[in-house]
Amino acid sequence: MQGLLNEWRRTNYTKNVTPDLTGQDVIVMGWVHEIRDLGGIIFVIIRDREGKVQITAPSKKVDAEILEDIRKLRKESVVAIKGTVQEANQAPTGVEIIPKEINLLNLANQPLPMDPTDKVKAEIDTRLDSRFIDLRRDNVSAIFKIKNRMFHTIRDFFYENGFMEINTPKLVASATEGGTELFPITYFEKEAFLGQSPQLYKQMMMSSGMDKVFEIGQIFRAEEHDTLRHLNEAVSIDAEASFMDDIDVMKILNNMLEQVIIDINEDCKEELNILEHEMPVPDGPFPVVTYDEAVDIVNSRDVEMSWGEDLSRAGEKALGDVMGGFYFLTEWPSEIKPFYVMPNSKDPTKAHAFDLMYNNLELSSGATRVHQYDVLVKQIEEKGLNVASFGSYLKAFEYGMPPHAGWGVGADRLAMVLTGVENIRETVLFPRDRHRLTP
Amino acid sequence: MQGLLNEWRRTNYTKNVTPDLTGQDVIVMGWVHEIRDLGGIIFVIIRDREGKVQITAPSKKVDAEILEDIRKLRKESVVAIKGTVQEANQAPTGVEIIPKEINLLNLANQPLPMDPTDKVKAEIDTRLDSRFIDLRRDNVSAIFKIKNRMFHTIRDFFYENGFMEINTPKLVASATEGGTELFPITYFEKEAFLGQSPQLYKQMMMSSGMDKVFEIGQIFRAEEHDTLRHLNEAVSIDAEASFMDDIDVMKILNNMLEQVIIDINEDCKEELNILEHEMPVPDGPFPVVTYDEAVDIVNSRDVEMSWGEDLSRAGEKALGDVMGGFYFLTEWPSEIKPFYVMPNSKDPTKAHAFDLMYNNLELSSGATRVHQYDVLVKQIEEKGLNVASFGSYLKAFEYGMPPHAGWGVGADRLAMVLTGVENIRETVLFPRDRHRLTP
Repeated sequence: MQGLLNEWRRTNYTKNVTPDLTGQDVIVMGWVHEIRDLGGIIFVIIRDREGKVQITAPSKKVDAEILEDIRKLRKESVVAIKGTVQEANQAPTGVEIIPKEINLLNLANQPLPMDPTDKVKAEIDTRLDSRFIDLRRDNVSAIFKIKNRMFHTIRDFFYENGFMEINTPKLVASATEGGTELFPITYFEKEAFLGQSPQLYKQMMMSSGMDKVFEIGQIFRAEEHDTLRHLNEAVSIDAEASFMDDIDVMKILNNMLEQVIIDINEDCKEELNILEHEMPVPDGPFPVVTYDEAVDIVNSRDVEMSWGEDLSRAGEKALGDVMGGFYFLTEWPSEIKPFYVMPNSKDPTKAHAFDLMYNNLELSSGATRVHQYDVLVKQIEEKGLNVASFGSYLKAFEYGMPPHAGWGVGADRLAMVLTGVENIRETVLFPRDRHRLTP
Repeated sequence: MQGLLNEWRRTNYTKNVTPDLTGQDVIVMGWVHEIRDLGGIIFVIIRDREGKVQITAPSKKVDAEILEDIRKLRKESVVAIKGTVQEANQAPTGVEIIPKEINLLNLANQPLPMDPTDKVKAEIDTRLDSRFIDLRRDNVSAIFKIKNRMFHTIRDFFYENGFMEINTPKLVASATEGGTELFPITYFEKEAFLGQSPQLYKQMMMSSGMDKVFEIGQIFRAEEHDTLRHLNEAVSIDAEASFMDDIDVMKILNNMLEQVIIDINEDCKEELNILEHEMPVPDGPFPVVTYDEAVDIVNSRDVEMSWGEDLSRAGEKALGDVMGGFYFLTEWPSEIKPFYVMPNSKDPTKAHAFDLMYNNLELSSGATRVHQYDVLVKQIEEKGLNVASFGSYLKAFEYGMPPHAGWGVGADRLAMVLTGVENIRETVLFPRDRHRLTP
């Protein structure tokens, strides 16, 4: 059988082939990024996840058999190359490898369905159809390296702050919040739905005494959006904490995002450079604007908005223009927030609810939750929802539910902010939207 | 409005109320675990996630109003108590709190739907129906504290070993492996399915050059199982690595699990005690038994098994009795392994595939994968599957797919092993099986 790895193992990622290894043998493995055959000398650039390195094959120094093997290579083929490291000022990384042995692991077909270099610009749909090639481009893999760092920091932050990780079911018997469209599913004899949020489950966990929990998981929304900010399958970062209120969990969210930005600046310098994106560490806590102030700002920018309305897209843009960067939007009208949000005890028309915005993009919603059974039932009724369908959720409020608060962050939207891309599809490996279900 | 947190904040978890704080004021928040009213003195045990502490209210030392408030409490109500710490040899933790102020945050209804202490044993179905109370029991929360540590260690292990976290779609257009039942879903005008495994996606990521990836996510299988080891929604820990073979990824799996066991022994001593479970750190690498040897062992234990058959439940038990603990089962017949598994180049009837077992429980399956397009197409055909339905997967093999290998571990089954429970439902907060879709 051809192309077997057998006893070959990589000794170094390309970026770890450095001039101080001169004279030593290394094995690199990766993709043929470029071949230049000048007759008497052949240059091959090998690319792996960590970078690129030049293979230099002068016909005088290298076996004829190896030269022949190199001439058979096609771009984007996968090879393992054993050779001797040599300092080379004229090579892109100041170093080259003189090949001694080649193992052709997989020959790439030609022509490629898209150009893996940036020379030919491709539309997003073409790119997503061949995502495995698209991801070979530096400016695409940079997005996912940053997103990987984002998740890593967020989990560390949760662990360090005493949050326990939970996994709640994605197959659910009823809608969590009225209004939003759900994907129905046949679960044996029963009808079920795909979870649009872990909201009710993370609240039930508060009644269990688990105190502080987080979940990073998929959510599914059957909304017929066709925008640059919505997907039908997304990843949500959810946190819920007992004996805390909206102000407490806003601080947690603020601290978490600050740490994410610090770590990305520290660990993803090269990726930010490739993306030509700057993400300065915020100078102090995120500013806060109340809903009342936001209505005034929006109207002052000639976008009509009455008190009690949600922000329109134009309203978000007007507000984002004035506020800029990260900011909390607080003291929302209770009427346009979900039933589980705690009203202000002095003025119940206002809720202990907040959104976190970045410019004109909503990243997170959070709130103090109602923990009193009677208030919760009343609010479910007032929203015109069916109390009976919330039976197993409501039960958790009857027998010792503590005060609690929490939030959910759209992970893919947060990745948009951190990487500076404008289409949410850029931040998801295999996005799902109104029209796309493959690959 | 009643039961508001207002300015109250916890100063200490109960376990951090220690004799060295004698004379200081603390605020604890939690559930009323026990009340004993001896007339002249009332004892209340307050429980939170981290433990329990005794509140001692002698009528001579404590305000009449506070005594009255305490007498109104019911078991499992949620309270915040401010008081002075005092050393007390006769108290369970050697310390007590003399209350100064009480904030009744939520009064629990009576009677409770199940007993949160271990005094009355409840059936698993009763417990799952009231999971939020079930989880207040030490021997239930211990399972999830161990599972939380398990995920934490696994993620750290992946990060430290250069694996990038990926999220692949759970809404998919076609079956990943033939034979297994899928949950169908209506995706706008199209038919879709819930992903039964990230297998094909993590393989496509190998073609992208991401090199080493992991995903911890939900998988969905519409199998009509009714056993102690199967659920219809489960969490799978998936890893895939380029330029590696089955032996390499077996080592990674072995090292990862060793680290998990080390960390659990270190950080979850109390939880293991509560569960009366020992999980000794394995002494060296997990033993390996080949499929051929396993057939002999099984037959020697009077369970019939022909070469080429999968292990029956009786076969797994016979093998588990002989092997014990963790062990790899290798060199499986190609015929009973999926199409994407690499056949042995010298004897193609055997595959570079392994299972990881613990006693008689299958925890993981892994393999070197086929990375050659032609071989893969041939194997898909040989399994009687429709090559056309694998279009977007196969495309990733045509243009530079490296050799790769990987595995998936059933997270909930691993948690069974680590906690010593015998029903997988014990290890999942809200399990989904043939009959259960709520809460």
